[in-house]
Amino acid sequence: MRKAILGLDLGGTNIKSVIFDPVLNKIITQGQIPTQAGLGISRVVDNIVSSIKNNLAAAERSRRRITALGIGSAGLVENGMVRNSPNLPGWQGAVPLLKLIRNKMSGIDLSILIENDVNCLVAAEYAIGAAKGYSEVIGLAIGTGVGGGIIIGGKLVTGAHGGAGELGHMTVKMDGPRCKCGNHGCLEAMVGTEAIMERYRSLNSKFRIQNSEFTVAEISVRAKRGEVAAVKTFFETGKILGVALASIANIFNPQVIVLGGGVIQAGKFLIDPAKEEMHKRVMPYNAKGLKIKTARLGPVAGAVGAAILVYRYSAK
Amino acid sequence: MRKAILGLDLGGTNIKSVIFDPVLNKIITQGQIPTQAGLGISRVVDNIVSSIKNNLAAAERSRRRITALGIGSAGLVENGMVRNSPNLPGWQGAVPLLKLIRNKMSGIDLSILIENDVNCLVAAEYAIGAAKGYSEVIGLAIGTGVGGGIIIGGKLVTGAHGGAGELGHMTVKMDGPRCKCGNHGCLEAMVGTEAIMERYRSLNSKFRIQNSEFTVAEISVRAKRGEVAAVKTFFETGKILGVALASIANIFNPQVIVLGGGVIQAGKFLIDPAKEEMHKRVMPYNAKGLKIKTARLGPVAGAVGAAILVYRYSAK
Repeated sequence: MRKAILGLDLGGTNIKSVIFDPVLNKIITQGQIPTQAGLGISRVVDNIVSSIKNNLAAAERSRRRITALGIGSAGLVENGMVRNSPNLPGWQGAVPLLKLIRNKMSGIDLSILIENDVNCLVAAEYAIGAAKGYSEVIGLAIGTGVGGGIIIGGKLVTGAHGGAGELGHMTVKMDGPRCKCGNHGCLEAMVGTEAIMERYRSLNSKFRIQNSEFTVAEISVRAKRGEVAAVKTFFETGKILGVALASIANIFNPQVIVLGGGVIQAGKFLIDPAKEEMHKRVMPYNAKGLKIKTARLGPVAGAVGAAILVYRYSAK
Repeated sequence: MRKAILGLDLGGTNIKSVIFDPVLNKIITQGQIPTQAGLGISRVVDNIVSSIKNNLAAAERSRRRITALGIGSAGLVENGMVRNSPNLPGWQGAVPLLKLIRNKMSGIDLSILIENDVNCLVAAEYAIGAAKGYSEVIGLAIGTGVGGGIIIGGKLVTGAHGGAGELGHMTVKMDGPRCKCGNHGCLEAMVGTEAIMERYRSLNSKFRIQNSEFTVAEISVRAKRGEVAAVKTFFETGKILGVALASIANIFNPQVIVLGGGVIQAGKFLIDPAKEEMHKRVMPYNAKGLKIKTARLGPVAGAVGAAILVYRYSAK
């Protein structure tokens, strides 16, 4: 039987899964089931385990043997413990996710690795996506939260306790708005979706919140239609993003910065001013040859990256 | 004959040298000669070469054979080329320092590595100084310039073109004062010696510049004597430094941050408010167990680090 790796991405809404061929670097199948985070951790773990079991059975049917399991999760991940994850609510402090999963999978022998979801996304873009072929790669995922991932010399940087890569909590304006993390002027507090919504509201005086479903995606649509407030919203957001890109280039001198996350759908409205501001601010040689790319793998990037990471770690 | 490594540190005033035993991790001899940077690059190269020759002869006399030469230089260093170094003035763009040295050393067979001086300092503190025994180390040297060095997994991070580690040019306040690099609100522009002098002048209304020799070291002396303006100068500087330390902890989740450079002589007047501000701002788990240490190796750290780096690279 041909070997394959199972990758899961534990999102707030869905648990996405891929069965991945690590030799061909190819997705064999993909699927998703609801996370049901609101029903508590125990239910989330049950759902993870049923996704695993269903995927193991599906692999078997297609004559493949799953040899390892990678899981991407929001939060700070260290040795199978997950801290500060919005998708695992109702538990004080750390969730021993690996242990909880293993307890419900007796008899199944599988290498399991849990890693931060943005680290997984960046690992996937590095291995088979927008940053393929490079070894010095920084990834930034911009959504409600702003996360990052650091690849140096072709290896994911995790830090002393799995906390490395929190680029969204780099201060860009020390007297700036308060961030959910407690700091002031974090990149996340200035370019995350809430900051963008707020910026749009202040730029479009006629805008009234009639619909709680109003999103950054809608502002993107309006920008593409040429609405001035929407265009200006992304222009100002992009300039702040450019400040962070310049810092990232000065700190890491990377070959590629990959931008992902929902906010990136704004495309050139966001990315053009970001690049312009970056070039105004960066030490020129640190941006020599630097490529700013958008993530290519879409919604399955996290699951694919989890599969790739566990394959590389367990193959050691 | 016992092997040894020669390390040089090309400073603005002096070329410091050490003959270093890489097995015992011990300095055998140390010395210095004037750089004479003002007399042009050719003179600087002559001085470097005469330091090398003198040290080779001295080693010979003490029955040691120099097998490799490491040189620390300010500026951006890539493959023996040095860019933007204030100590190598009068040359447009890049100075091919390695080639210039080799041209004047025909007949001498030696591995030579040139590396950024702050990277050398951090490598030395990592190998035998304040960060010995750790693998995830960030160094910050605060003087006229603010430089940095990044050690991940026990290896120095240099980036795509040798530019990694420019932590002094991380933006902490995007609308802050202009930095010499062209950016606004860089750490260097806010905690480097010029910013500290300026801060002191604005806090001490009675202060008049009677003496161009007035330095940050003098403000340190005044702080230790209890002068309010001096204490407040370092308190405010320390808080800004703390903003950067929090970003560094969030980005790298290091085990140790080593603080070096002349400004650190202010001691607790600077470091206590820096730590306090860092802890207010950092994601708590990213600072778990994090040690903030002061550099231990003093003025020879750069030369020692250059020796250590060339030994490790050439031993591969």
